[in-house]
Amino acid sequence: MQNGLRLKEAYVLRLSHRPSRDKRVTTHVALVARAFGAKGVFIEGEDTHLIDSIKKATEVWGGSSYFKVETISDGKSLVSQWRNKGGITIHLTMYGINVCEKIKELSSFEVPLLIIVGSEKVDSWYYHNVDFNLAIGNQPHSEIAALAIFLDRLYKGLELHYIFEDSKLRVIPQEAGKKVVKNG
Amino acid sequence: MQNGLRLKEAYVLRLSHRPSRDKRVTTHVALVARAFGAKGVFIEGEDTHLIDSIKKATEVWGGSSYFKVETISDGKSLVSQWRNKGGITIHLTMYGINVCEKIKELSSFEVPLLIIVGSEKVDSWYYHNVDFNLAIGNQPHSEIAALAIFLDRLYKGLELHYIFEDSKLRVIPQEAGKKVVKNG
Repeated sequence: MQNGLRLKEAYVLRLSHRPSRDKRVTTHVALVARAFGAKGVFIEGEDTHLIDSIKKATEVWGGSSYFKVETISDGKSLVSQWRNKGGITIHLTMYGINVCEKIKELSSFEVPLLIIVGSEKVDSWYYHNVDFNLAIGNQPHSEIAALAIFLDRLYKGLELHYIFEDSKLRVIPQEAGKKVVKNG
Repeated sequence: MQNGLRLKEAYVLRLSHRPSRDKRVTTHVALVARAFGAKGVFIEGEDTHLIDSIKKATEVWGGSSYFKVETISDGKSLVSQWRNKGGITIHLTMYGINVCEKIKELSSFEVPLLIIVGSEKVDSWYYHNVDFNLAIGNQPHSEIAALAIFLDRLYKGLELHYIFEDSKLRVIPQEAGKKVVKNG
C-alpha cells in the first residue's frame, strides 16, 4: 500500500469461519480487507487452503510485504488482547449505531483498529465487549459489503487509488476489454 | 424505499448463478441490492429457494411493494433489451475505468440503470456490449463489495438512511446488544 498515502492501521477479524460453508464469503472478506487498505485479516477457524489462496493473491497483486493473513482459534481472546494493548475494536452489525455518527471519532484514533465481522450468528459476548457496535445501515445485507463501506468511510475513498508497488501484475483500466501488464 | 428521498432507478443483474456454488454470494448480492436502494435484482440461472428467501427478507424488512427479484435464462438478452429501451448498462469489473471518473456522468442520466455483476468468469461479450465497464478499484476483491460501493457512490451515502416503511420489523440502533421492534 504505497504511493505516498499513509493509512490508519486497521485489521479485520472474521468470526466463525467454517471451510465448507464459508469458503467463498470469507475469501471475499479477506480480498476486500487487502484491496480496501487494511493491514491484515485474522480468520477464526482452520483453513490452510484459504490462507494459501489469499497469500497467493497478495503475491501476485501486491501487499505481501505487510498484509498479514492468519487463522486463530479464539476471536474473543484476540479482542481482549487488542483492547488490553490499547487498540480499538469495532464490531460491524445491523443492530449497531449508524457508522456516519461515529466515523469522525474513529478517524481521530491513532491506535490500531480491529474491525470484526461475523458470520450468520455472532455470540452476544461481542456486542458487550467491543468498543463500538456500528451499523452500515440497520438492514440485513452482507458482512462483505459492510466491511467495504466501513473501510471506504475510514479512508475517505482514497483506498480506491492506492498502488500496490510490489505487485507482479497491474491492470491498465480499459473502456472495454481487459489489459493486464507485468510489473518491472 | 421511502422517507421523502427519491432514488434514481437502478436494477442489478447477477450473472451465471449456480445454486450449489453461489447460494450465499448471490444472496449477499440480492440483499445488498435491496438495502442499498436498488429496485430489484435479476439472477441468471435457476434457484427458486434463493428467490423465496429474498422475497421473505423483503416482506419482513420492507420493500416488497417495489423490489423485484426474479431469475432469467439469458443475461445477454436482458442487456440488449435494456439498451434497446434506452436504459444504461454498467458492468462492474476490476479491468474497467475507475468509478470516480464516471459517477458524475452516470448521475446525470434519467433512465433506468442496469448494474451487472459477474461470478468468477464473465463472458467477454459483456465487456463489449455494455455502456460502461467500471472498476471499484483495479484490484481483485468481491462483486458484493463492488455493488455496495457503486450504489453508495450513486446515492451519495443517503441509502444508509432510508426507512422501509412497509417493514414488519425495525431495528432500533444500540450502542450494545440488539433491539428490534414490530411496526404498526
